[in-house]
Formats: sequence, structure tokens, C-alpha cells
Amino acid sequence: MAASDPTGGRPVDPSRGVLRPLGLAEARITAGFWADRQRVISEGSLDHARAWMDKVGWTGNFTIGAATGPAEHRGREFADSEVYKLIEAMSWETGRRADPARVREIDELVALVGGAQEGDGYLNTAYGRPGQAPRWSDLAWGHELYCAGHLIQAAVAHTRVHGPGPLLDVATKVADHVCATFGEDGSAGVCGHPEIEPALVELYRVTGQRRYLDQAALFVNRRGHQSLPQHQFGWSYFSDDIPVRAATVLRGHAVRALYLAAGVVDVAVETGDDELLRTVAAQFDRTLARRTYLTGGMGSRHMDEAFGDDFVLPSDRAYSESCAGVAAVLVAWRLLLATGEVRYADVIERILYNVVATAIEDDGRAFFYAHTLHQRTPTRSLPDDEEQLGFGGGPRAPWFEVSCCLPNVSRLLASLSTYLAAADDEGLRVLQYADATIDTRLADGRHVAVELTTAYPADGNVTIRVTATDGGEWPLTLRVPAWAEGATVTVDGVTSPASAPAVTVRRAFAVGDEIRLHLPVAPRFTAPDRRIDAVRGCVAVERGPVVYCAESPMDEPVGDLDRLRVDESRTPVDGADGVTVWAGFAASSDAGWPYDRPDGATEDPDLTPIRLLPYHRWARRGPATMRVWLPTVPSPRRRSTDG
Amino acid sequence: MAASDPTGGRPVDPSRGVLRPLGLAEARITAGFWADRQRVISEGSLDHARAWMDKVGWTGNFTIGAATGPAEHRGREFADSEVYKLIEAMSWETGRRADPARVREIDELVALVGGAQEGDGYLNTAYGRPGQAPRWSDLAWGHELYCAGHLIQAAVAHTRVHGPGPLLDVATKVADHVCATFGEDGSAGVCGHPEIEPALVELYRVTGQRRYLDQAALFVNRRGHQSLPQHQFGWSYFSDDIPVRAATVLRGHAVRALYLAAGVVDVAVETGDDELLRTVAAQFDRTLARRTYLTGGMGSRHMDEAFGDDFVLPSDRAYSESCAGVAAVLVAWRLLLATGEVRYADVIERILYNVVATAIEDDGRAFFYAHTLHQRTPTRSLPDDEEQLGFGGGPRAPWFEVSCCLPNVSRLLASLSTYLAAADDEGLRVLQYADATIDTRLADGRHVAVELTTAYPADGNVTIRVTATDGGEWPLTLRVPAWAEGATVTVDGVTSPASAPAVTVRRAFAVGDEIRLHLPVAPRFTAPDRRIDAVRGCVAVERGPVVYCAESPMDEPVGDLDRLRVDESRTPVDGADGVTVWAGFAASSDAGWPYDRPDGATEDPDLTPIRLLPYHRWARRGPATMRVWLPTVPSPRRRSTDG
Repeated sequence: MAASDPTGGRPVDPSRGVLRPLGLAEARITAGFWADRQRVISEGSLDHARAWMDKVGWTGNFTIGAATGPAEHRGREFADSEVYKLIEAMSWETGRRADPARVREIDELVALVGGAQEGDGYLNTAYGRPGQAPRWSDLAWGHELYCAGHLIQAAVAHTRVHGPGPLLDVATKVADHVCATFGEDGSAGVCGHPEIEPALVELYRVTGQRRYLDQAALFVNRRGHQSLPQHQFGWSYFSDDIPVRAATVLRGHAVRALYLAAGVVDVAVETGDDELLRTVAAQFDRTLARRTYLTGGMGSRHMDEAFGDDFVLPSDRAYSESCAGVAAVLVAWRLLLATGEVRYADVIERILYNVVATAIEDDGRAFFYAHTLHQRTPTRSLPDDEEQLGFGGGPRAPWFEVSCCLPNVSRLLASLSTYLAAADDEGLRVLQYADATIDTRLADGRHVAVELTTAYPADGNVTIRVTATDGGEWPLTLRVPAWAEGATVTVDGVTSPASAPAVTVRRAFAVGDEIRLHLPVAPRFTAPDRRIDAVRGCVAVERGPVVYCAESPMDEPVGDLDRLRVDESRTPVDGADGVTVWAGFAASSDAGWPYDRPDGATEDPDLTPIRLLPYHRWARRGPATMRVWLPTVPSPRRRSTDG
Repeated sequence: MAASDPTGGRPVDPSRGVLRPLGLAEARITAGFWADRQRVISEGSLDHARAWMDKVGWTGNFTIGAATGPAEHRGREFADSEVYKLIEAMSWETGRRADPARVREIDELVALVGGAQEGDGYLNTAYGRPGQAPRWSDLAWGHELYCAGHLIQAAVAHTRVHGPGPLLDVATKVADHVCATFGEDGSAGVCGHPEIEPALVELYRVTGQRRYLDQAALFVNRRGHQSLPQHQFGWSYFSDDIPVRAATVLRGHAVRALYLAAGVVDVAVETGDDELLRTVAAQFDRTLARRTYLTGGMGSRHMDEAFGDDFVLPSDRAYSESCAGVAAVLVAWRLLLATGEVRYADVIERILYNVVATAIEDDGRAFFYAHTLHQRTPTRSLPDDEEQLGFGGGPRAPWFEVSCCLPNVSRLLASLSTYLAAADDEGLRVLQYADATIDTRLADGRHVAVELTTAYPADGNVTIRVTATDGGEWPLTLRVPAWAEGATVTVDGVTSPASAPAVTVRRAFAVGDEIRLHLPVAPRFTAPDRRIDAVRGCVAVERGPVVYCAESPMDEPVGDLDRLRVDESRTPVDGADGVTVWAGFAASSDAGWPYDRPDGATEDPDLTPIRLLPYHRWARRGPATMRVWLPTVPSPRRRSTDG
């Protein structure tokens, strides 16, 4: 394969697949929900992250040993990777919106990073210097290949926005060093934290150098043979328990498993290995069916940041790391491009509205690391100048000792417009709904453009106006989410049913033609698979793609959410500032031992309207308790403790 | 206070309280459920633990630097404490049953330990030598005071069985060194892991030296002021978040919190601080009401081995460490002695039958560290010569990198007979039921003895025969467990109702008199407090003090326990080899996304008799899945995924 368009502005750019992704120049978000969040990243998060990385010494690490540099490495062993993710985010951001000052900042950061590269291409500020551990001495925990992967991804992003430059030179030297060290004739190791795999494939896509793809395939095939040391968390933590081709589900550390899955899709696509593609798709599908929260969040264990067993999805202490949300989008997007299965866009939408949108504070200067679905004790008030050591629990924090999530969410949001649509063999597919413009060439080279106007997700009506076409026939496909029962599409005054996963309008469009998609977003109850013990006897409320929650801020308490009981027989309705359900608070006493004979009676609290708010809006009104899953009435009553 | 009887053989020997504990010579278990387990410890666990401690170098650590000793410390920083707990277990065991060979083994171990003591009394094999961290350089994680505490407890046990000897000398030197280092004029620190607190009070009780009590009180009062370093787990991990007197519930690392609570009771009792006693009792009571599993197990979080928030009690991934069970018995026993509230004996019984009895393999040579209540994937087969690095998940393992649980359970079981009964102001209280003899003096000095005969807990009939008395009147009090509805007591052919927590028979007993207690142990359903989300819509089955479970061994599968549904309307009944419930398996399919609109239908699987077995018997038939809490039918059905 020849190198793909080096400046296409596409986060992922496979050489084959059912869908062809669009670049930043081809898809733009112009207003609305996501434009607001892109602005928060642009005006808040990028500077905030940079300031903290300077403050805690992560940028300074690149000048260790220099005259003005620090004497010792600061931060965790993977701190370099956060700087790289920030450069990646800034690169997409400068492709999204011209910003010469930011471009100069990137250039300065690139110079800083490049200055730390060794003559043989090695680049990591935590290893190999006097007093540091030797290079590659701790593949399981050292994160060296992981950091190299994020450096490569930053270079790929920068190249796809600004063309080849110094960062690509740095990254190719790193990649060549990796290939020399870990190639067929080198060390047979893998990194404890996958990331180098998708990065090397993207570098192959940018440079056309087959050796990077081969090295990525080597890493994929080497994993799963328990070559990493035994550990308390087991080999599954590293996805090193069984070979990728033998696994049936994602397991272990969620971000690691998902980054690996992204790399596996990339390797499968570029090497034409359809069996491998089917295998990783089946793993992801089973993960969605059995190991994913309603929000699309993944990872249910705090200790090892890991997937639980099938159906182990506790609401309280849900881990659902922001980075796992980002990583799951990366996997779903790759599978969507490779297979054309629009249902993967449903997954992306769910994660975006319920994990990604939840992660970031309104000013972009604080963020969630983990995303509980049930906050039993009120969130705390955190000082805005204090680094947090723990990752779980609310509220959003300005910085964590491990601050992967903010730059990770930033790189996704800065490039978000490219997830809106894709081209297929004949036409255009609109995959996400926002005020946006899409302007591209179809597979046969024809220029087409559409403009999307909508108040989505508040409202389910989307108007798609054709703004460029050559008058010939082409198909316009619109995703219909699985939840959108009763959806319709209106063309030329004719309204037709539109059922999931998509509706296609094929005609000789004229400029000015309007297609109107109606997606019913009325609030609805959702029940869990009965095998999910943690939320048995509960319902959740969703409205369109948005998961809702009950929140009880300390300033304006709603009540003891542990005792909230919702009437499942009365449909939730839209209210002035949220969704209303009918619910009450079950009686309870503290009679001591909390287990007793059942008495068969039912609870019947007085029911009143209770307002729910979008889950992504929680923890924005000061300390609060919160729950997504709402126990229903009636339910069996214990004999003595209650009533 | 003068020193108490130094050879009374009592694990806890308070100078005041409503009840006076009995010693090993006064209460003996002669046959039955617990006699079997004491034999397993005696014939299996003690030698097994000793062999492993030799193999992994923990005993060898005491000869570091000696001519034939190892060059470096092996094992975790608290490995010394396991040797001490083993010496304590062996000491009780030699009080329970004469065993000259074991006595010699103890003497050898004591000589080994004593040989490592420094001239100033300091004794810890992991600190202070060349190449090791300095003494007291890491109070948070170093476990030095914790190890000193277990050494003191071993010396107290040995002294109470065999009288003062070399180990007591070693321990008092250690304690004096601790007092000199951490006294009023010394370092104001506390240990990250409590244990020194109850140990110093017991040493005070043995020696009469007030300085040990004062030092324990100092440690108790110092804790809770965030003097330990900030950590990812928070100060609550060390119970160092708020002062003991301000806390309302146990929190953080469960074993740490419980050992501290034991020490707090001891300090409160010996200093006459009734307010402190009420405070710690209230903390424990609230912990029982909101943070304790049905089994009596405590600790619901793997990451920090910690209590969860109120009502966060997941069945799968329950932590419920064996050591937390032992520690909770120590707290409950102290509160029972101090307050005379018999309900604490209910707690002890629950923990004994469902945590302690579950912990140990039938041959005593493997054990659980954590106790899940729901095993979703089959337990593994473990080699019997391999140390396990992880603590959670089944099955019982021969050894763990952290092997606190086996010696801890051993020291409790070896001294278990002393928990059977206690003396009150006037008479005798029988607190646990087993084939046993109790032979003691009442408060007024009269000699009384009774013999208990029972098949408990298989059968709920207990005969108490008076075997010694002086013919005068005295009250015999028998505990009636809270679950024992319909209990009766029969004296002289007259049967009367006996209600919880206890029934008292007061008369001028004659030798040969028999009192018959009848505790209905018929199987029963138990429902959880509705605020425990993890088991909403489920019931458990208990029979007497024993919690039951459904187990599906791979060799003889019962079915997919994730789909098991029990008919709550049909009372469970005793069967030939277990308890039978009527249950079926709900239909389910894997349609993909596991959340969908509720459809209001109910599930009605075909119901057949399903056998349950005692939870303490699980994981003894090879790899298996298991669950304690059983979802009930009917329950609301989701629309599309099921059926």
C-alpha cells in the first residue's frame, strides 16, 4: 500500500473497510451540545492540562540532565505519555480551528520532547539515565512501549493536520528503535500496557513503511503467552493470559484490553486477516453484551481497573474510567469503519453522551477519572490546587497523580467531528447528529455536502440539507438508534417509518433538498438483563441517547436516595428542567441486623413527582448523592427492619 | 489493679465487665462440629503453616546475619507477625491438649525469635540492619508496631497456658522499647496497622505494669488526627481520618479497624472509660447493621481490603477476609464480656459457622483469604506446592504471599472452647452450643460444672446436665439465638417458651439435673435490608446459624446459577443431604445490548427441587460456581433479551 493522504486529518485512516472516514476539514461541528464541549476543551482543558504538567514536572522531565533541567524524574513512570496525548489533542485542535499561538506551543513542546531523544532513537525520560532503571528492564510495569505509542500517535495526529515535520522524525526514529529492539531478531517481549500496537499501524498508514505494520502484528501475536511476570492481578490484567486469537471477551485492565483491541482491528484490516477481525469483533460484542454499563462505561473493578466477570456491573464503585470510554470509542469506530455495522455508532453515541460528556467540568478544568453510577455518600469539595492521589469517587478533580483522562478526552473531543459521518461505496452515511457541515467526495469522486441542523439530543428532529451535489443519484444513509422506536424520515413531504439501524434515501439530490429525520426522544424506562445482580429490581430512565439520574445535592436535598422507589407503571415525562418520574421514599428503620425473614408485604411509599437530570450533568451543584438505577415499587418487604 | 491469674488460659482477661471469661481448663469441647475443626488445626494446619514458613523463609528471617542465617529478609515486611501468630496458636493448642512435642517446638521457635532481639529490646527482622530501612522509618506501611503487637499476644498466650517464661521476657523488652520510643516524651506516631493497642492492654493484664495500658491509651487517642501520610486510599484506610471518639462506624481496612476496635474496648474497660466503651460499641453495632455480610463477614472492597459505604455489600467480589472474621470475633467477645449483651454471642456464632468454618480445607492444609458469596466463574484447581500472589477468588490455597489467615484462624480455633460460656455476677451463662464440659467457680467461689450434649447445629436440641454443684441456688442462663423462633426450655419435665436473647433457669440444681434446650433449626428464607442493592430481589436460606448456598460443581453441574430462580412461596425443607428449595432456571438469550425497555411480563421457569449445602461446605467438590443469595420468581421481565 502507498502512504495514505498524510494531511487528511483523520484520527484513524485504514486502507480498506466498508466505510471511509472523513477528515477534520470534511466534517465540522458548528453549534450545539458538542460544540460547547469542544470550546471547553479549547478554552479550558488544554491550558489547564499544560499548566499542571508544568507544575508537577512532567514537561520538565524532558530536560533532565540539561543545564536548567531537573535532577530527577517526577511523576509516575508513564508521565511522558500525558505530554504526548496533550500534543495530540492540541494537534487535532489546531486542525479543527486555526490557532497560531497553539501551533507555536505545539512546536515548542515538540522541540522539548525531541531534545530528550537519544542518538539511537530511544526516548523515555524515566529510564536509562544514571540513577534510573535500565531501558526495557520492566516491560510489565515500565510503560516504555506505551509511551512510545502515544508519542507516535501524537506525531500521526500532527502530521495529518500539519504535514510531516520534526515530530514525525522523532516518532519514526523511536519506531525504528522499537523495531530494532523488538523485531523478529530482537527481544520477544510485549509491553504491559498495549498502545504501541495501534500506534505502529497508524505510523505505517502515514509513512507507508511496512516494517511498522509487521512490528505491530508481531506484538499482537506475541501477547497472550504469559511472557509477562506472574502478578497478583493475573496475566489477564495485561491481556497476556491467552492469545488474542483464542480469546472470546475483553478482560483484565479495561484500558489495556481496549487499546489492544484497537490495535488488533488495525492489524487485521491492514493485513487482510478477516478471521482476526471477526474474532476481535466478537470479543467486543460479547463485552458490550455482558461487561458494559448502561452508560457505555467499561471496567467494574477498582483494584485492577479491570473488567469484572460477565454481568458483574455494580453501580456503586463502578470504575468506568474516562480513558476506557475513550478507548471503547476508538475500538467501536474501527469496527464501524471495517464492517459498516452502524450499531457501533450507537455504542459511540452512548459513550459520548454518558461517559465523555460526564467526564469534564463545565470550565474544562476538572474531570472524573472513574464514573460511579451510584454515589451513596455526598461527593466532597475539592480544592482546585491539589493533586488527588486516589482515582475513584467524586467529584471531578483538577488533577490526579495519574492524569491520563483529561488529555485523552481532549484528543477525542478535538477530533470529534470526524466521527459524525463516513463515506461508503456509493454515498454518505450520517452517524451522529449535531449542528454540522459535511463536505466530502464520494467514492467515485463526486463532490457532495450536507448541512445538519438540530437541537439534538434535547430534541429528536434533525434536518439534513443538501448544500452541494452534482445532480446525479447517490444514497444518503442516516443512522436510526436502536432506542428510537417510531422514528420517521420525511423526504419531499412524504414521511416514512425509519427503523434501526439506519434508513437510506437514494435519489438525485438537488442543492437545497431537505431530509427530515425524526427520532422520538421521549423519556423511557430501561430494565437490565436479569443476570446483572447489582441492579435487579431497578429501572433506569433514558431520554434519547442520554442516561438520567436522581441527584440529591446537599444544598437542595431531594431525600435519602438509598430509599428512593420509583413507580414503574407511570411513564416518565419531560418537565421544565429535566425528566419527571413518580417516586417516593421507602420507610426504613435501623433495627440492627439487616437480614431477616421475608414477610411478603409490599412497600407503598407516597408517590410524588421527582425530577431526574442527565447523568452527564451530575456533580455540578456541589456535594451530592446520586443514583442511575432506581429501585421500583412494589417489592417484597422484610418483616422487621422496615415499616 | 494486680496482675490477673497469669495462667488462666483466657485469650482475653479484662479486670472488669459484666461477664468473667473462662480459661482453657474450664471449658472443653469434647466432640462434634468444632472438635472436628480443632483436630484439623491440631493435626494439619499448625504443621502445614510451620512447614511453609520455613520454606518461604519467614522463620529463617530471625537468623539474618547469623553464621548459618540468610543474607536477606524474605517475604513481606510483616512476615514476623505470622510466626508470632503461629506461636500463639501453638500455645493455645498446648493448653487445649497436652502435646510435649509441640511444647518443644514452641520453645525452639521462642529461642529463634529471642535470638533476633537487639540489646535495647527492638525486634523486627525487616528493619534496622545494614541494607534495611531504618527502624520506625515507615510507620504507615512498615508494620513494626503491628509485629510487636503480635509478638506480645503470643507471649500473653504462652504465659496464660504455661506461665511466665523466656517469651514473656522478650515481649516485655519489646514493649518497654515501644513505650520508650512512643511514650509521652517520645515520637507521637501510630502504626498504620493497629494491633499493638490490644496487645499492650493484655500485657498489662498479665504483668500488672500500668505503663503498657497507658501506652495503649496513648496510641488510641493519637489515632484519627491524620498523622500518617496521605494516601490513595485515604486516611480512613488506617482509621486515621477522625479520632476514635468522634467516629460512628468502622471504616477503611477492615482488619485494621477491627483490631483497633478490640484495643479500644480493652482501653475503655481497663481505664473505666464508659463513654469510650459506648462509642466503640455503637460503632460496631452500626457496622453490623450496615456493613456486614449475611455470613458475618466484613469488608466489601478488594482494592483496599476495606469496608464499603453503608449497604454496599456485593456478593460477587465480597472481600470478607478470614482475618476480619477472626478480628470481629475478638471485638464481639470483648463487648460481650464488658456489657453482658448476649446478642454479641449471636454475632460470634454467625462468624464461626460461616466465615471461620468456611476458611479451612478439610485437611487444614489450604484456606480462603477472601470469602466471596457468589462465584460466577468456576473456581480453579490449585497446585498444593505453589504460593498464591492474589488474595481473592477461590478455591482455598495452600499458601499466599500474605498468609495471615491460617495462623489467625488457628489461634482462634485452638482457644475456641473459652468462647462457649462465661460467668456472671451470680451464675453461669452458656453462649455457644457444642458437646462440651464446663467446670468453673461462680463469682462467690462455688464450684459448678455442666456437660453439654448436642448434635448442634445439625439438630437444635441441647441437653445441659449438671455435673457439679453445691446444692445451693444459682442461675444458669442459656443463649437463645435471634433466629430461634419457637425455642423452648424443658426443666423437670416442664417445657416453657424461651425467647431471644436468653433464658435463665434459676434453682438449687442437683448433680444429674438435666435442662433441655430446643432451638428450631428448620431451614428458613432470609431477606436483606432493601437498601442493600447487590441482593435486591433475592432471598438466602439459613438453617440454624448456618448460611446455605447453591453450588454447581463442574463434575456434577446443577445449572447456570446466574439464571437460578427460587420460589419464595415454598418453604425450604431438610433433605437427605442438605436443604431443598424449589427453583428453576430462567430463560435467557444473548441478544446483545443487555438493557432494554421493561415488558412487565414475569418469568416462570419450571420449578424442581434443588439441593443447597452449607456455605462452609462449598468449594470442597472441585471447581464449581456458587451463590448464597438466590433471585426469586416472579420478577419483572425485560422485553427482548429474555424469553
